[in-house]
Amino acid sequence: MYAKLTLSAAFVALAFSHNALAADHNLSADILVVGAGSAGLTAAVQAAEKGKKVILLEKNLGVGGSSQFAEGLFAVGSEWNRLRSDPLTKEEAFKTLMEKHGYVIDAAKTKDYVEGSAENISWLAGHGIKFEVVRMTPWEAATWHVISDYKGTNHGAGLIKGLKDAADKAGVETKLGTPATELILNKEGAVVGAKAADKKGNTYTISAKAVILATGGFGDDPQKVKNWAHRDPEGWKSSVPIGKTGDGIVMATKAGAAMGNVSFVQHLGTEGKGIKFLGNLYATSWQPSALWVNCDGNRFSNEDVAFSFAQAANAIYAQPHHYGWSIFDDSQVQYMMKKGVDSGIGVLVPVGQKLPNLQKEIDDAVTVKSDGFKTADSVAQLAKELGVPEANLQKAVEQYNKACEVGHDGEYYKEKTYLRPLNTKKLYAIKLKAYFFSSYGGLNTNRKHQVLDKNNKPIKGLYATGLEVSDMVGPTYSTWSSGHAFGFASYSGRHAALNAIDEMK
Amino acid sequence: MYAKLTLSAAFVALAFSHNALAADHNLSADILVVGAGSAGLTAAVQAAEKGKKVILLEKNLGVGGSSQFAEGLFAVGSEWNRLRSDPLTKEEAFKTLMEKHGYVIDAAKTKDYVEGSAENISWLAGHGIKFEVVRMTPWEAATWHVISDYKGTNHGAGLIKGLKDAADKAGVETKLGTPATELILNKEGAVVGAKAADKKGNTYTISAKAVILATGGFGDDPQKVKNWAHRDPEGWKSSVPIGKTGDGIVMATKAGAAMGNVSFVQHLGTEGKGIKFLGNLYATSWQPSALWVNCDGNRFSNEDVAFSFAQAANAIYAQPHHYGWSIFDDSQVQYMMKKGVDSGIGVLVPVGQKLPNLQKEIDDAVTVKSDGFKTADSVAQLAKELGVPEANLQKAVEQYNKACEVGHDGEYYKEKTYLRPLNTKKLYAIKLKAYFFSSYGGLNTNRKHQVLDKNNKPIKGLYATGLEVSDMVGPTYSTWSSGHAFGFASYSGRHAALNAIDEMK
Repeated sequence: MYAKLTLSAAFVALAFSHNALAADHNLSADILVVGAGSAGLTAAVQAAEKGKKVILLEKNLGVGGSSQFAEGLFAVGSEWNRLRSDPLTKEEAFKTLMEKHGYVIDAAKTKDYVEGSAENISWLAGHGIKFEVVRMTPWEAATWHVISDYKGTNHGAGLIKGLKDAADKAGVETKLGTPATELILNKEGAVVGAKAADKKGNTYTISAKAVILATGGFGDDPQKVKNWAHRDPEGWKSSVPIGKTGDGIVMATKAGAAMGNVSFVQHLGTEGKGIKFLGNLYATSWQPSALWVNCDGNRFSNEDVAFSFAQAANAIYAQPHHYGWSIFDDSQVQYMMKKGVDSGIGVLVPVGQKLPNLQKEIDDAVTVKSDGFKTADSVAQLAKELGVPEANLQKAVEQYNKACEVGHDGEYYKEKTYLRPLNTKKLYAIKLKAYFFSSYGGLNTNRKHQVLDKNNKPIKGLYATGLEVSDMVGPTYSTWSSGHAFGFASYSGRHAALNAIDEMK
Repeated sequence: MYAKLTLSAAFVALAFSHNALAADHNLSADILVVGAGSAGLTAAVQAAEKGKKVILLEKNLGVGGSSQFAEGLFAVGSEWNRLRSDPLTKEEAFKTLMEKHGYVIDAAKTKDYVEGSAENISWLAGHGIKFEVVRMTPWEAATWHVISDYKGTNHGAGLIKGLKDAADKAGVETKLGTPATELILNKEGAVVGAKAADKKGNTYTISAKAVILATGGFGDDPQKVKNWAHRDPEGWKSSVPIGKTGDGIVMATKAGAAMGNVSFVQHLGTEGKGIKFLGNLYATSWQPSALWVNCDGNRFSNEDVAFSFAQAANAIYAQPHHYGWSIFDDSQVQYMMKKGVDSGIGVLVPVGQKLPNLQKEIDDAVTVKSDGFKTADSVAQLAKELGVPEANLQKAVEQYNKACEVGHDGEYYKEKTYLRPLNTKKLYAIKLKAYFFSSYGGLNTNRKHQVLDKNNKPIKGLYATGLEVSDMVGPTYSTWSSGHAFGFASYSGRHAALNAIDEMK
């Protein structure tokens, strides 16, 4: 999912301020890559290693983008899977993806991705990046190739560090704090470069034989969330806002690209006064062993849907006013402190990780009278604290405790393992809300990763990669194919570069 | 799916023409039901049988609505399932529905529906309607309870006939050609009746203790398809246009209801000059044993997705310009004429039904130079006829025939049974397009089927049923739970009536 949010402030670009020494520059490259997340960096490295002159633009002051906060990449049938005897075949992966996404996704591109995913991990490993396959929850396949190390750094940051080293070594010219502002077209409508500008007032006119867009999603722009994704930006919030404003999609559509389908990489979560993002208390919101109720005090889902963070977000969003409460008790607190969490938040809070600070964080949240966390010594009091009808909450707790007693959830069939009765003498509740890590989609591409125009013809010289690409996922992200978005970034970046080189011949 | 389209013209309401004898009428009822499809008729019958005075309004000149064209109802664990030893449990049905719809659907209402579905069939059977469970394709569960007979009529028309008889017997006052025009609210915002008008210029002010909306979908209004469903009405077309304009949704939102999520009951199909709807040639468009290519001449899906008509529609819609071609040859024609179809179009063209007129319909389509059907005596000629790049089509046919030869579809993993090589000396192609039978959704309701306002509070006196109800399906209709929409109509109609009566006490 996401890591090290504290880094983000450091590399989000500062506002432009014109400088007296600013100048207009004319540059040229074989391949211009826009955006230095894992998609853009991989494209740049791949192209430069093939001997091409590459310029890489990044609007933020550091490389990495959303990938900086990711952890693992999707792959099927990799060397790492082989050593674990993971049973998933490429055939089953393809079929399951098509089925899970209701055949709204692109079968050809999905097939290519599944087929090429393992080789992609091997290529990255060839650059010194180490991987391990992790199953984050029992509801997913063993597709998640987590970066275990690159020179002392793991997860997304490790991948980015490795790719940046490779880019430097291969001679990629990286310009930070320098967003592309528009694409340059020739008379035939082919893309032949882009304009860019930095905060010192320098402007750049960069000619290139191909432009590879890798600017990521648009989820940090609420207007686009509303107009492009038709989702309520009040109900769905960006969990890692780092300036994802769909710049590549905007530039490409101005250059004639069609607007494609858009989706979200959604997940459950919480927020509130005194609740630390990814802290011990935060981690309780992802647990399957609680009782979930909505603002009417009614239970609304089998709570083990928490094992599928995207589906869990849907379930929460579907409730009145788009939120819920996760109710647990002291025995759960003790369990999480001593035995650790049942459902990991990726590998940031891995399965089984103990939450030693949980009691303290609970006490702190109580002290500051958190709006996202409540405690009570009876169901009646809890109903009051949560502002839900007491009769409904009483019924929900009673039915739930009865289900725990007999070991069968006749209401929503939650797995017996997570049916743990609530001691109503001391109850806790943490608010549940729906978030998205990023949007996923915006531009239609073909199997060569070329951007398509409104007549579905490729725009010569223009490629799109990673989170900008439509029809890789349906409206609900599949957590079953763990690492799908992060894996697709480098996979599509590399193959866009290879195809761009091929087209130049 | 749908039956007897020829009936439709007869009962779509004529334009209004004012009549000199027209008058204003004041009527009253315990329960006013708006719309006389299976949801409205069932609500009316249930309420009248409980001794309530019921008025039933229908804007068309005949009862039935979309149900007239449907065939079977969803149910799990019915008496009919018992006699077939069908293995599906209610637990598995619930879990599968939640999973298939990505938890965007309402778990509580879904649970209620699954639990109550069998009893609903029994209740209908108690009114003389006969059922049989049919598995339409190998990709679905045995949930489809097809109406086998009601006094000589089967399918949706049989159900409607049975319900209409029951309504008449129970004393329901049915007014045809009389659309409700607006809801009447009291000072507290509760619904206390509705206004209506007929084509003779009569107007009606009907007071009622409860109003049950059962006006069906909005799919025949392209503006609503665009604005409510955010789908391109050029790419998605209504297959059975009978005046489904979302009247109930419009009236309810004017009365303060929130607009909920909307979906489609989508399916694949074809159209073109000389192609008879549901004819022998039409039926070939639903077959898994053909080769499907898009307008670029590229194969785009495992063709056995035809077994899931909603997913097949998605796959076709996802192609450039939203269409494709299904290519087959003479051996397939012979197969369909002698052994019958592999994939049924519901029970209208059931699995195994022979297509005796296929050769004649092919000849006729050729004679009229159909835009939806092409024939050629080589791949090169077919490419020309279809207007697709020859090289791509050659490659698609070659790869496909190779897959047939070795009995393994390495591209999209179509089941071996349906890999039948094409004789390129004589090829046929029928156009594939995406349709929807109806929209599904529009109003948020609670477990009592009460319509919810923007604060998620029930609007007193107002109920919604059937295709008007949100959050029963996700963006893609599930053909796995065959009969879901048709089953929900009578199920929700009945329970809305029972709850309305309960609220009156």
